[in-house]
Amino acid sequence: MSTGRLEAFSDGVIAVAITLLVLNIQVPAIHPHGPPGECRTLGCALARQWPVYAAFVTSFLTIGIIWINHHVMIRRLGEPDHMILFLNLLLLMSIAVLPFATNLMATYLKQSSGQHLAAAIYSGAFLAMAVFFATLNRHLLLIKPDRLSEEIPAERRRRILARSISGVIPYAIATALAVVSPYVTLAICAALAVYYAFPIGSGGAAAET
Amino acid sequence: MSTGRLEAFSDGVIAVAITLLVLNIQVPAIHPHGPPGECRTLGCALARQWPVYAAFVTSFLTIGIIWINHHVMIRRLGEPDHMILFLNLLLLMSIAVLPFATNLMATYLKQSSGQHLAAAIYSGAFLAMAVFFATLNRHLLLIKPDRLSEEIPAERRRRILARSISGVIPYAIATALAVVSPYVTLAICAALAVYYAFPIGSGGAAAET
Amino acid sequence: MSTGRLEAFSDGVIAVAITLLVLNIQVPAIHPHGPPGECRTLGCALARQWPVYAAFVTSFLTIGIIWINHHVMIRRLGEPDHMILFLNLLLLMSIAVLPFATNLMATYLKQSSGQHLAAAIYSGAFLAMAVFFATLNRHLLLIKPDRLSEEIPAERRRRILARSISGVIPYAIATALAVVSPYVTLAICAALAVYYAFPIGSGGAAAET
Amino acid sequence: MSTGRLEAFSDGVIAVAITLLVLNIQVPAIHPHGPPGECRTLGCALARQWPVYAAFVTSFLTIGIIWINHHVMIRRLGEPDHMILFLNLLLLMSIAVLPFATNLMATYLKQSSGQHLAAAIYSGAFLAMAVFFATLNRHLLLIKPDRLSEEIPAERRRRILARSISGVIPYAIATALAVVSPYVTLAICAALAVYYAFPIGSGGAAAET
Repeated sequence: MSTGRLEAFSDGVIAVAITLLVLNIQVPAIHPHGPPGECRTLGCALARQWPVYAAFVTSFLTIGIIWINHHVMIRRLGEPDHMILFLNLLLLMSIAVLPFATNLMATYLKQSSGQHLAAAIYSGAFLAMAVFFATLNRHLLLIKPDRLSEEIPAERRRRILARSISGVIPYAIATALAVVSPYVTLAICAALAVYYAFPIGSGGAAAET
Repeated sequence: MSTGRLEAFSDGVIAVAITLLVLNIQVPAIHPHGPPGECRTLGCALARQWPVYAAFVTSFLTIGIIWINHHVMIRRLGEPDHMILFLNLLLLMSIAVLPFATNLMATYLKQSSGQHLAAAIYSGAFLAMAVFFATLNRHLLLIKPDRLSEEIPAERRRRILARSISGVIPYAIATALAVVSPYVTLAICAALAVYYAFPIGSGGAAAET
Repeated sequence: MSTGRLEAFSDGVIAVAITLLVLNIQVPAIHPHGPPGECRTLGCALARQWPVYAAFVTSFLTIGIIWINHHVMIRRLGEPDHMILFLNLLLLMSIAVLPFATNLMATYLKQSSGQHLAAAIYSGAFLAMAVFFATLNRHLLLIKPDRLSEEIPAERRRRILARSISGVIPYAIATALAVVSPYVTLAICAALAVYYAFPIGSGGAAAET
Repeated sequence: MSTGRLEAFSDGVIAVAITLLVLNIQVPAIHPHGPPGECRTLGCALARQWPVYAAFVTSFLTIGIIWINHHVMIRRLGEPDHMILFLNLLLLMSIAVLPFATNLMATYLKQSSGQHLAAAIYSGAFLAMAVFFATLNRHLLLIKPDRLSEEIPAERRRRILARSISGVIPYAIATALAVVSPYVTLAICAALAVYYAFPIGSGGAAAET
């Protein structure tokens, strides 16, 4: 197994997952002569499902960032062993699950029941992704440094890993705060996505590229 | 990050988005003994959903064109910086959203309510795509010309960029005309798709290839 | 635009289209205490939707064959011009539409209304695919032979093209026979798929590989 | 046809199939004031559909393993003949069908009717996949060893093939035991997925890598 194939397959899964997100955006029905409380115009109906767009953009950017970071990580790898393939598969599974988690979040955000759990699962899916990513990075940088494509000083390896692990923290906080409010959880996840995606954010992919 | 990976991932997202468009074409139900006004034959039912096909073909060709242009653009690039990755991600997001926008257009085109907004959003999605494309091209050609894979004279860079920016105009017009009639908007978008896709059209990909 | 990118994008669209076919296979509901005529067991319900499987296998194999033939064709190409990109996009569109055509066929095959039209559209989609394929091959072999990666004697080019064009005929017949019976149309399409896919069939990909 | 293209297309189909699995995980509706027996909380509703998650994880890991094994197999191949393309297409078809089989299993596992058949089909789909894989490997190693990219001693070829064939047995057992209990079938499939995926399992991909 070459890293080329590992990248190609991972790219495929990530590209499909990121594009499947759009299936969560439904064309709303309108009821021009419906009762008060129902949307009578398309504008109203589209505006009312704003959680769908917010969750879509957040998930899209987050998957885009993990894709960038994934390549930075894999580029360091000489040849994968079986543990790396396994951890990578778990990482891909946590990404593949995001269209569901995104849909769950968008569906329940404004509900009066289930909204806290939905937010915790949404943020928890990102948390799982960050944990698998850090685990994979740890295996690569600390346990199997002989498989790196070129030698990296131990000091630098620890620094890369520390940043990778620190990426777990904000998602843990966002997940914990789902008890308080699902809006807070979504806001944190969205802010992280914009921060890391936007070239000014220095803690994310930019620093590693 | 190599341009090869950037292309491979972009190709993946574009290929999935263009193929997901087909999910908008539903198999219609027929009512052989239904009331007048309902379709009693499959031919009638299929013919009645013509906006679905019109929007499908328009979106399919438009995504196909943006794919061609995307490669012409990326081929000029030596190595992407983080801003390029970010702008490319926004471009991909505007493409990934098209199956929804296409569905919205097809669903509301013949309705007596919401049809103007649906057309504006449909054309607006193409407009966003054209804007992100021009922005990415501008960053590449004007701000970071040192990242080009081979030097391009300033004169030629400005000409390429001017054409890229001028591609925004017809979609802006189509979006504005949605106030008048959604049919006009769809007709403009369809005409642009055919014009650029067809090898005779000189303003689109043909000129750059 | 290199042929590598053309192949990669075409592969992506074909791979997504062939895999989306599975979405047409629905998990049936059963009615253990339903009225006579309804399926009371899963076995009955699954058996009853046999047209879904027949259409799935036929379309899957047919797309698989077109994928093989597509590569044989593109491998001969040195560098694509814009007409080739355009014709290839039309070919991909005819492939991307197959999940819908397959669903239409499977849904209406056993109906007493619409079954002939559904079969004609199903077979007609394959016909369109064959026509676009032959057109693309013709452009490549006759009109732009200077773009071939290596010279092919005129005699051999005509022979390849003749075979490519003759592939249109059986689908034209299958489409015409939809007037008689949709079962005949499906049987012809299925037989063609098996004949070309199976390594013994000498008229299909085997001969060109 | 090069093995590179064969791998790229196979990768595409497998990546789409593995990612489409997520569409089986539906966002459940809750009925806060519903009758007893209905779920009143999201936690209850999500917990109740545990078969969906169990089947998802099992199928995801199994497809991930077949992807790894597929590459180990194809890497040995010099140039594919038409029989290899055909057998590979059948293998891909058995993989592409898994989102349906997974959905069937998850839907009927807890039902009092159809659960045995659903489990047999689920496990039977894995069985078919294992059979096609072994057949492809047999063709490659025994019938066409001259197409291998580098010579492999007959002894070692037989050993690889024996392991490939022995992979069929547990799925045959799991399918047979569907008569007894669908839970047993799912448990065996899940155990196999974890055993082969987890780096400690020595009978699966690990041994071949």
